[in-house]
Amino acid sequence: MWTGGHMTVPASEMAVPGAVALLLTLLGEAAAGCGYQSCPPTRPDLLNVHLVPHTHDDVGWLKTVEQYFYGVRNEVQHAGVQYILDSVVAQLAANPSRRFIYAEVAFLARWWRQQDEATRHTVRQLVEQGRLEFVGGGWCMSDEAAAHYSPAIEQLALGRRFLRREFGACGTPRVAWQIDPFGHSRQLAAIFAQMGYDGLFVGRVDYQDKATREQLREMELLWRASTSLLPPAADLFTGILPNVYNPPSGFCWDQLCSDPPVVDEDSEENNVDNIVSTFLQIAASQAEHYRTNHIIMTMGSDFHYENANLWFKNMDKLIAHVNARQANGSRVHVFYSTPSCYLWELHQANLSWSLKMDDFFPYADGPHQFWTGYFTSRPAFKRYERLSNNFLQICSQLEALAGMAAREGPYGPGDSSVLREAVAVAQHHDAVTGTEKQHVADDYARQLAAGWESCQLLVANALASLSGSKENFVFCNALNISICPLTEAAGRFTVILYNPLGRHVSWPIRLPVNGASYVVTDPQGQPVPSEVVPISNFTRRLQGDGSSATRELLFQASAPPLGFSTFMVSRLSRGDPRVPPAQTPVLSQPWEIQNEHVRVLFDPLTGHLKEIQNLDKSISLPVFQSFYWYNASIGNDETPQASGAYIFRPNSSEPIPVSGSKQVSTYLVKNRLVQEVHQNFSSWCSQVVRLHAGQPYVELEWTVGPIPVEDGWGKEIISRFETTLQTDARFYTDSNGRQILERRRDYRPTWNLSQTEPVAGNYYPVNSRIFIKDQKLQLTVLTDRSQGGSSIFDGSLELMVHRRLLYDDNRGVGEPLVELGANKQGLVVRGRHLVLLDTVESAADQHRLLAQELFMAPYTVLAPGGGPSYRRGHPSLQQFSALQRELPPNVHLLTLAPWDAGTLLLRLEHQFERGESANGSQPTTIDLLNLFSAFTITSVQEMSLGADLPLDAISRLVWTPTTGPAQPRPVPKLDPSQVTLQPMEIRTFLATVQYNVPGGASAGL
Amino acid sequence: MWTGGHMTVPASEMAVPGAVALLLTLLGEAAAGCGYQSCPPTRPDLLNVHLVPHTHDDVGWLKTVEQYFYGVRNEVQHAGVQYILDSVVAQLAANPSRRFIYAEVAFLARWWRQQDEATRHTVRQLVEQGRLEFVGGGWCMSDEAAAHYSPAIEQLALGRRFLRREFGACGTPRVAWQIDPFGHSRQLAAIFAQMGYDGLFVGRVDYQDKATREQLREMELLWRASTSLLPPAADLFTGILPNVYNPPSGFCWDQLCSDPPVVDEDSEENNVDNIVSTFLQIAASQAEHYRTNHIIMTMGSDFHYENANLWFKNMDKLIAHVNARQANGSRVHVFYSTPSCYLWELHQANLSWSLKMDDFFPYADGPHQFWTGYFTSRPAFKRYERLSNNFLQICSQLEALAGMAAREGPYGPGDSSVLREAVAVAQHHDAVTGTEKQHVADDYARQLAAGWESCQLLVANALASLSGSKENFVFCNALNISICPLTEAAGRFTVILYNPLGRHVSWPIRLPVNGASYVVTDPQGQPVPSEVVPISNFTRRLQGDGSSATRELLFQASAPPLGFSTFMVSRLSRGDPRVPPAQTPVLSQPWEIQNEHVRVLFDPLTGHLKEIQNLDKSISLPVFQSFYWYNASIGNDETPQASGAYIFRPNSSEPIPVSGSKQVSTYLVKNRLVQEVHQNFSSWCSQVVRLHAGQPYVELEWTVGPIPVEDGWGKEIISRFETTLQTDARFYTDSNGRQILERRRDYRPTWNLSQTEPVAGNYYPVNSRIFIKDQKLQLTVLTDRSQGGSSIFDGSLELMVHRRLLYDDNRGVGEPLVELGANKQGLVVRGRHLVLLDTVESAADQHRLLAQELFMAPYTVLAPGGGPSYRRGHPSLQQFSALQRELPPNVHLLTLAPWDAGTLLLRLEHQFERGESANGSQPTTIDLLNLFSAFTITSVQEMSLGADLPLDAISRLVWTPTTGPAQPRPVPKLDPSQVTLQPMEIRTFLATVQYNVPGGASAGL
Repeated sequence: MWTGGHMTVPASEMAVPGAVALLLTLLGEAAAGCGYQSCPPTRPDLLNVHLVPHTHDDVGWLKTVEQYFYGVRNEVQHAGVQYILDSVVAQLAANPSRRFIYAEVAFLARWWRQQDEATRHTVRQLVEQGRLEFVGGGWCMSDEAAAHYSPAIEQLALGRRFLRREFGACGTPRVAWQIDPFGHSRQLAAIFAQMGYDGLFVGRVDYQDKATREQLREMELLWRASTSLLPPAADLFTGILPNVYNPPSGFCWDQLCSDPPVVDEDSEENNVDNIVSTFLQIAASQAEHYRTNHIIMTMGSDFHYENANLWFKNMDKLIAHVNARQANGSRVHVFYSTPSCYLWELHQANLSWSLKMDDFFPYADGPHQFWTGYFTSRPAFKRYERLSNNFLQICSQLEALAGMAAREGPYGPGDSSVLREAVAVAQHHDAVTGTEKQHVADDYARQLAAGWESCQLLVANALASLSGSKENFVFCNALNISICPLTEAAGRFTVILYNPLGRHVSWPIRLPVNGASYVVTDPQGQPVPSEVVPISNFTRRLQGDGSSATRELLFQASAPPLGFSTFMVSRLSRGDPRVPPAQTPVLSQPWEIQNEHVRVLFDPLTGHLKEIQNLDKSISLPVFQSFYWYNASIGNDETPQASGAYIFRPNSSEPIPVSGSKQVSTYLVKNRLVQEVHQNFSSWCSQVVRLHAGQPYVELEWTVGPIPVEDGWGKEIISRFETTLQTDARFYTDSNGRQILERRRDYRPTWNLSQTEPVAGNYYPVNSRIFIKDQKLQLTVLTDRSQGGSSIFDGSLELMVHRRLLYDDNRGVGEPLVELGANKQGLVVRGRHLVLLDTVESAADQHRLLAQELFMAPYTVLAPGGGPSYRRGHPSLQQFSALQRELPPNVHLLTLAPWDAGTLLLRLEHQFERGESANGSQPTTIDLLNLFSAFTITSVQEMSLGADLPLDAISRLVWTPTTGPAQPRPVPKLDPSQVTLQPMEIRTFLATVQYNVPGGASAGL
Repeated sequence: MWTGGHMTVPASEMAVPGAVALLLTLLGEAAAGCGYQSCPPTRPDLLNVHLVPHTHDDVGWLKTVEQYFYGVRNEVQHAGVQYILDSVVAQLAANPSRRFIYAEVAFLARWWRQQDEATRHTVRQLVEQGRLEFVGGGWCMSDEAAAHYSPAIEQLALGRRFLRREFGACGTPRVAWQIDPFGHSRQLAAIFAQMGYDGLFVGRVDYQDKATREQLREMELLWRASTSLLPPAADLFTGILPNVYNPPSGFCWDQLCSDPPVVDEDSEENNVDNIVSTFLQIAASQAEHYRTNHIIMTMGSDFHYENANLWFKNMDKLIAHVNARQANGSRVHVFYSTPSCYLWELHQANLSWSLKMDDFFPYADGPHQFWTGYFTSRPAFKRYERLSNNFLQICSQLEALAGMAAREGPYGPGDSSVLREAVAVAQHHDAVTGTEKQHVADDYARQLAAGWESCQLLVANALASLSGSKENFVFCNALNISICPLTEAAGRFTVILYNPLGRHVSWPIRLPVNGASYVVTDPQGQPVPSEVVPISNFTRRLQGDGSSATRELLFQASAPPLGFSTFMVSRLSRGDPRVPPAQTPVLSQPWEIQNEHVRVLFDPLTGHLKEIQNLDKSISLPVFQSFYWYNASIGNDETPQASGAYIFRPNSSEPIPVSGSKQVSTYLVKNRLVQEVHQNFSSWCSQVVRLHAGQPYVELEWTVGPIPVEDGWGKEIISRFETTLQTDARFYTDSNGRQILERRRDYRPTWNLSQTEPVAGNYYPVNSRIFIKDQKLQLTVLTDRSQGGSSIFDGSLELMVHRRLLYDDNRGVGEPLVELGANKQGLVVRGRHLVLLDTVESAADQHRLLAQELFMAPYTVLAPGGGPSYRRGHPSLQQFSALQRELPPNVHLLTLAPWDAGTLLLRLEHQFERGESANGSQPTTIDLLNLFSAFTITSVQEMSLGADLPLDAISRLVWTPTTGPAQPRPVPKLDPSQVTLQPMEIRTFLATVQYNVPGGASAGL
């Protein structure tokens, strides 16, 4: 029952429970001494140099997170974050003028729980006085190319929530701090803006871009990070740091450096004059590239400040001696500062800043050095990360829906935080990127797996509570390679399909079995069509010893929005009357497959796909698809740059067909549920082109690997589509799975590109989709993970699906990306490309929703069936939905998660961009109060995207672009019964709820 | 005037000024919380493991002292002592159970003067509570092989004085801490005993010795460090550390190490069980080599604790977890401790300890790895160090004699502390040893040179004050290669010869001139015989462009004890009636030279020395002398060990004659003052065999270098003497220039030697002399610096004079010992061997006094003459002595130096060993009160050898050797008019004095 009215009472008078109350209390705290008013005094008449002491602590890279935290395996890299925080706190306490910033909450939170109250008190004081400032403040410093927006938001929110909880208003970061990621995405910039950041600092931009900007003094700019949101909602002031994130040359005073310390006593090593003069020279040069009389110097680097005394003692001296030169006429004033204090001074300058609309991809740090390999590196891990976030969302939803019964239930303690933190860690710019050492990648996977375990307990508890039946739930994690002991052995079992989407879903189920014939019934006991097919040779090889199954059972399941359906499966003995009749597939020719919506034609001579037809729209397009490999460069006369984990550099722009000149061997499977062409390109590369009954897309399930490298050549495998579309050098890729950006071959919107790599220099990150189009038609390919993609010639598009390299690319990881599996061979990677052919006008209506199904896919839980009742006397539910009605197609339930006791976190997003769909791009209004059936919302507060601040507490600095000012609009009063979403808008709420039945389970549909 | 009576009044009632009063005040302080009573509680029922956190801070090695202090040139070696002390103090303050020891006062004093009062207060508290303990406490951790006892005592006293002054009684070190020197000398052990140390810990002993001692549990022993002093005066408990000075394997937690930290939380890196078990295993193994239920572990190494948090944080955890195992039955108790607390527990054990009489030379850390090269490495620097201490003693004496007039005079501020500290630094075990990098050796020389400059100002001030004449003093530092612009150019000049010895000295003067004839007059105006000889070709080559002199003026000067004589020199024009008559040398044959005492015969065919005759005793001995080179090993099949800065390893035991098979070309110089045979062994090796009129020794002035290495072979040059003496494998070398130890070829007194290097394994340090003897005759060779020496076959002795090597010997210095001079060629080194042939009974009477003249040689100051009067109306003095009478021959005035205002430091030593001379080895009694004429002693207190503690304040722990106890004798009341010296005794006094004339100058003789 709704009790909070329309939220017209002043927030402070509201009876808000738990975290909401806390947040309101913290609202007025900014006057405590932190924030902009705590910034050091500056000198308007002088060049002000902001020294920003910082450490850059990778949440895993050459060592695992735990190894970095403790300082284990220092022979690999000397780095121990526990000591960094110990040391910085002591050194800050020793001198009130010193300042420090810290970014990575994964480490901070780890350290914090080991500290005694006295230390915590000291740290809180430092934060309250602005001496210790948090920047970025995510759980990690996330990647921008391979990170999907859903976990990217979550990891930021996770870190910010910790900071808010432990440090209050002074702990809230004011600047985004993406100093190391290898390029910068527009969607993430929009997210930063919507989380309330006043500005963003980045370290890595293309060397040509940087040189141009230095010359034009456009190193600092205003980034308009959305074409849908009204300015300045997604405007983000962006500063490019002068030295990536390192100190100026000669001023590195960490224990990891060897620059001479300041010797200012009577000593033959005295170097004060020399050091001061060098510093003044550097400051003057740097000032030439920036617009104000303020410049910033990052004083730190990777894992610096383990012995903070070295840095601070020498900077103390530097500051004293440089400022002492003012008495001799020097015009330079130097002091400890922070990025936010620097930002504040830039804001005070009241200038107009150049406006940027595109993004910062791809990143090159020199000719032939395009960091576009990592878009694909470690494709198996990239998929595992994506799938893990999918499961995390399901886990969070079920925790929210089942309440305490999810965390404490018959299967043991369930906990979503393990997976939440593991997924957050996986967003790190050396995690999902694939640029970590192998043992670290293994550890990321281990962390995720541990998260899955905790979540599976939670899911079991929740499903038992919601369904009323204590089943012996089984989680088959290897269904993609058809391994599941229960279904292989059992004569009867149940299949529970949980659907995390706000809309009903129809989903193909494919399970390994040994029986020849099964009967499947739906929640209502009605039979569901099913088929049994032989397991393909390729899949059998992948199963290895893991399975003895020879067949797969197929059926099309469906599940209600935010809920589940339970299906019963029974093996039939030969002669059982229920054995289904002979299959009657949709009619198709020998060299084609088709369903109600699509027909796909193949070339009978070569076996390649050759045409796709959209039967609904009577559209057809010649589409040739095949696999190729780029031969990885090992360096050449021009430059020694090799292709590696970061860098993509083919030694020729012409990829080599995987199948050579041979025909692709094929075979067909056709039945009532599916039509498939199995293509065998080589012993290590195959594909199933598949049409599921009733689905509008063509599924290309590719299986690639182990990539052979015994010939001494690294190989980068692509799936290339060639069409007749006139694409005029243009193609389109998503930004973190959300916005779409136009790409143009051999072109950058903001500078005159000198292209050095005709292939690698045109690669862009593809998180969820890539498409090409002409005036009429659009061919869209959706991916199940992040990959690199491009359109190397008109009418084509390609995605790099796997890569295996024999040389390190000299960016620090120090290993070639050879990825060995347990069998000491290269990894086999299996994935899916979903291909849509449609009109340009209708394309978004399909790919927006289909992409949603890919990243928040339904989840299958199995059970032998026949478990006891959860609550004595209560019948069990075969089907359940937590929604009263489906969400409209343009609205996605991005987040439903527990927050505090009785409070849930809710994010709803409009998933269309302005103008991309006649219907989809319209604003939509939702009645929050009548949306859920599982619980009743009793009060609700709208929050900023990070959920750590009430939306009306956000007051960002306003920046003026050269195109003219855009004033922020006041936050309208919230009417939870009429929540309107504009295109690309995400709205975040904390809702206090009452569950509709004790224990959290609600009535089903 | 003497006012103190016979010191029978209780010390506390005496009117004692300055430092003496301070020392008395500090006497009763030991109860303050430091000292043995502050030691951590131990468990008699368990194995007690004393963890001793420490850093080993070389006072120069791969970097200079200043570079180490500040952390400059960290690319060479990461080390910054300023940060170490910063960090340790902070970490000690953070936890009262933690302890730390510090050894090198050169660094501590440097750091101390930068600290504010708050930090000093903290440090004083730590010291007073025993949490910070000083060990060793010398200015550096001195070398033991190449260090002469005079500067070795001084550098210890310098450090101890600092500690006493700044930290009082709690600052006084109780254990000697020689954990890195490459072997250990008996004389230094005796010095430690006499300074009041309760014990000594060493790190490096021969690997065979160590293995034997481990097996016999004799790793801890009682060292009887003198055969002359009555036990237990020179008894020193000595502990050999288990791991040199490193932590046990796997427990190195410094930033410079990579051992895993203790991970004791829920983490996949958790390693507590493993770490604790490993530790217990190591402790148990170690305990098998030691005798009590206490063992010591050194937790630190070279320049560790720059970030002390790493060490302490992990040791805190180790201690907690290891001791927690006691609950599970573990019998190990571990805690923070110090060497003195460990020593205290050993003492409490009340055991009898094995007695050692010999020393710990030579040191080998494995087969073929004898650290006997450094006995000779950098011979030029070794000489400069020796000469610098000589000048320091002169400087100190003149400062004491002239008082304030020495420090503030007409030539500017004079200061002996610069040279005192530089000489102290030069004692470091990588300084005088020659095992530092070249640039560091250069810096040591620079430090010494700076000290010379300060001292020369002081000497000028003092000489002007004492002589009453403000001369324009000139210091010609390159007289050894006959460069002196004044004497070369001037027609008239004066020569002031200062004699620092307590006895009259006669000294040959040799000055570069251009005139053909000079007249020289003594202080009384009487003419002194002089000669002008051509400069030898070898010397001319060494002069280079530094001089145009073609001749040398020779005359025999003399000076009174502790005073000076001034000689006037005037060039005579041709035809001057005073031009001396033709020379009438002592009669000698063409192939021999002789004087009143000695005749030396040469082989007319080969040019080699062939016989020496002592004319006084009518003794003659066939002595063949020549130069050879050992071919340095570059490693061989047996072991890759090369000869290097530390290690001596010839690739053959047969050295190669420098002159090849050729005759040595020779020529003779004979005049009234000198007879010389100039021998030319090769283009880079020559020698002058010289007899000065009236002197009982043969002087062999050798000039060696640049050693040619263009053939790719390192060379180690020896001067070898072959005689017919039946030496039975025995020879004799001094210990730090003082005691004499018998050496025996291929033999060690305390274990059954397995000899792997027939040459290098028989080399011993020679600081001042080496001799061989039979029943009747003794051939003694005195050196002017430390060298390696041996007797490789009976009747022979050899000294290595120079070495030049092309390979590093893998002991850390990382450079081959190629020593290049300014001209980029190898160094030319010139030195002297003084050879004495005498009866065994009389030998000591000669070599004891001659050695004294070598290390405290007179010093020549030059002046144009005719300077104005120092005090108007006072006549100038041509001669001066500060003594009322000469000291007896067996007494040496080791130290006369200013202490505090009005107080002087005085050390008198008996310079004979018990039994080595019928007369010389008798006790001698001195009347201190009537010894000096320059000042009157008004009160005097006897001090321990370090001068920082009153003698009667010394109360050392008494240790019982297996041979039975020796009880310390009570300190008798001092009667300064009857100070008796026993053989090898050094007595130290602080004397309050009144100068006999204002300004400090006394009347002359």
